[in-house]
Amino acid sequence: LVMQLESDRMRNLKFDPKEIETERQVILEERRSRTENRPGARLAEQADAAFYMNHPYGRPVIGWAHEIRDLTHEDIKAFYDRWYAPNNAVLVVVGDVDMGDVLPLAEKYYGSLPVRDVPDPVKWREPPHQADGTVVLRDRDVTQPSWSKRYLAPSYLYGASEYAYPLQVLVEVLSGGSTSRLYSSLVVQDKVAASAGAWYSADSRGPATLGFYVSPAPGKSLDDAAAAMEAKMADILRDGVTEDEVQRAIVRLTDAAELAKDSFQGIARTLGAAVTIGRSAQDVEAWPDRIAAVTVDQVNEAMRHVLTDQGALVSKLLPAAASTQEGETAGKEKS
Amino acid sequence: LVMQLESDRMRNLKFDPKEIETERQVILEERRSRTENRPGARLAEQADAAFYMNHPYGRPVIGWAHEIRDLTHEDIKAFYDRWYAPNNAVLVVVGDVDMGDVLPLAEKYYGSLPVRDVPDPVKWREPPHQADGTVVLRDRDVTQPSWSKRYLAPSYLYGASEYAYPLQVLVEVLSGGSTSRLYSSLVVQDKVAASAGAWYSADSRGPATLGFYVSPAPGKSLDDAAAAMEAKMADILRDGVTEDEVQRAIVRLTDAAELAKDSFQGIARTLGAAVTIGRSAQDVEAWPDRIAAVTVDQVNEAMRHVLTDQGALVSKLLPAAASTQEGETAGKEKS
Repeated sequence: LVMQLESDRMRNLKFDPKEIETERQVILEERRSRTENRPGARLAEQADAAFYMNHPYGRPVIGWAHEIRDLTHEDIKAFYDRWYAPNNAVLVVVGDVDMGDVLPLAEKYYGSLPVRDVPDPVKWREPPHQADGTVVLRDRDVTQPSWSKRYLAPSYLYGASEYAYPLQVLVEVLSGGSTSRLYSSLVVQDKVAASAGAWYSADSRGPATLGFYVSPAPGKSLDDAAAAMEAKMADILRDGVTEDEVQRAIVRLTDAAELAKDSFQGIARTLGAAVTIGRSAQDVEAWPDRIAAVTVDQVNEAMRHVLTDQGALVSKLLPAAASTQEGETAGKEKS
Repeated sequence: LVMQLESDRMRNLKFDPKEIETERQVILEERRSRTENRPGARLAEQADAAFYMNHPYGRPVIGWAHEIRDLTHEDIKAFYDRWYAPNNAVLVVVGDVDMGDVLPLAEKYYGSLPVRDVPDPVKWREPPHQADGTVVLRDRDVTQPSWSKRYLAPSYLYGASEYAYPLQVLVEVLSGGSTSRLYSSLVVQDKVAASAGAWYSADSRGPATLGFYVSPAPGKSLDDAAAAMEAKMADILRDGVTEDEVQRAIVRLTDAAELAKDSFQGIARTLGAAVTIGRSAQDVEAWPDRIAAVTVDQVNEAMRHVLTDQGALVSKLLPAAASTQEGETAGKEKS
């Protein structure tokens, strides 16, 4: 039944002008509530746009508000006609099923649809980042200031992809749970931060981002917290992470992968995301073994490859009242 | 003869693989000498990319190096076939000629070429800039540090286009010659700057940039010069420019336009640029009158419209040795 419904939707969608206008308002409202009314999300959007010089990852997936407003019915129809085709879709079936049962149904419902001339994905590349950037957003609604710093990083399919697994282990060492490097030092021990961590996802066709974030503890300034984070990162970069940290991170990551198997939806999502960007189900299945094979030397090498001190972007979220204390020359409040 | 040659080139270009490879090297060398070997040009490229969030003006006209290298012969042919057509070209003839002589020749040479289905120009728009940005480039070859700050501005054809003429007068007041506001105060009087000025061009289909730049005098730091510039801009923004300044700027601008008529190439270029973006020869001819009609109130209103303190981008060019003095948290040298 689901296949029948989805294959019908892939081919026979009716574009009712009234429904389009209703949906347009729904999407604009979604953009308002998720991005425009949340200073942190607005800053993230501005930071992505400033960070990526060429790659479309610098643009929000939901689109800019003016694009959502300006889309014509013809634009929408043309997009549908171009991209919605069985040869451009990934079907993921998870559960107590057999390929012998699934395949004939897939062939029946999707195989009968016409193949479309879908263009190959553009291989967008990002030119070298040569300048250090900073973006600062001030807003009256900010109650908790925050700081982040992002670096261009390889992904599974872009750049020095041999570092994709080591970088995942690195981020687990730095940021996985309360005993991680950044949390245990900046939050628990030094009490300069209310939160601190790192992020990275290797799951992209284009370049990935390795990022660090910190938010000051009550009574501390954003500059205090940022300086503590920078100092900690410089320490780790100089000394490297340890064998013991790497082994514990690997155990946590592979345990989490084992646990994730309990969720049908999680498995489907992981498989679908991988195959959509051009990886295989075998890659997904091999993930725990590949993570387990990561060595401390690989982690430190990957870290030093990414954390060069050129081309990173710092972003700062501040209350509108905070003026020149962050060392910005243009520190007047917006009026 | 020129028409014959150009119309032949518009239609019958041969793409010899050897010549393409030779030209590719020429263009890469041009990019190296004009951009990659010049820290200021590299910074300008990085700053444009960080500044424009959505608009393709954030990309260099010559292209990124990887694009020049990766262009296939098919890409080049497809570009030529798509865009090189008489219905997508502007022919400018300047000199002691008569339309009665020119038109039959143009019809003969260009009118005989097939019209191509050239797409309408995409109306790119730039979403609101909500974060203040900074980009810093450090390079060993920098002998003269410099600072600039750019704002998103209307052009003749984008945004609040009624401000396009007043902004040109503003920039002339601020930056036109040795008696201008910025030069006379920051360079001559205060001796904090070796150079100081502003830039703006209204001649674009999309958004324009209003920018300010300053370079420190010997013995002064970049921070000193930038602070002096910011203070001066705040003064001007508060007090406005004067009637006398506006009138003198208008005289200089209209005199310069009169002088420019002596250059056939200049006239051709101005007309071609205008018509290419969708303006008319009448617009170009009316320019001196429209500039002369600008009032001091319009100039001050335009200035206050553009110089809001949100979403501007500061860029700093520094010698590689200068580390934390600019108040950057990530002040390590690149290694």
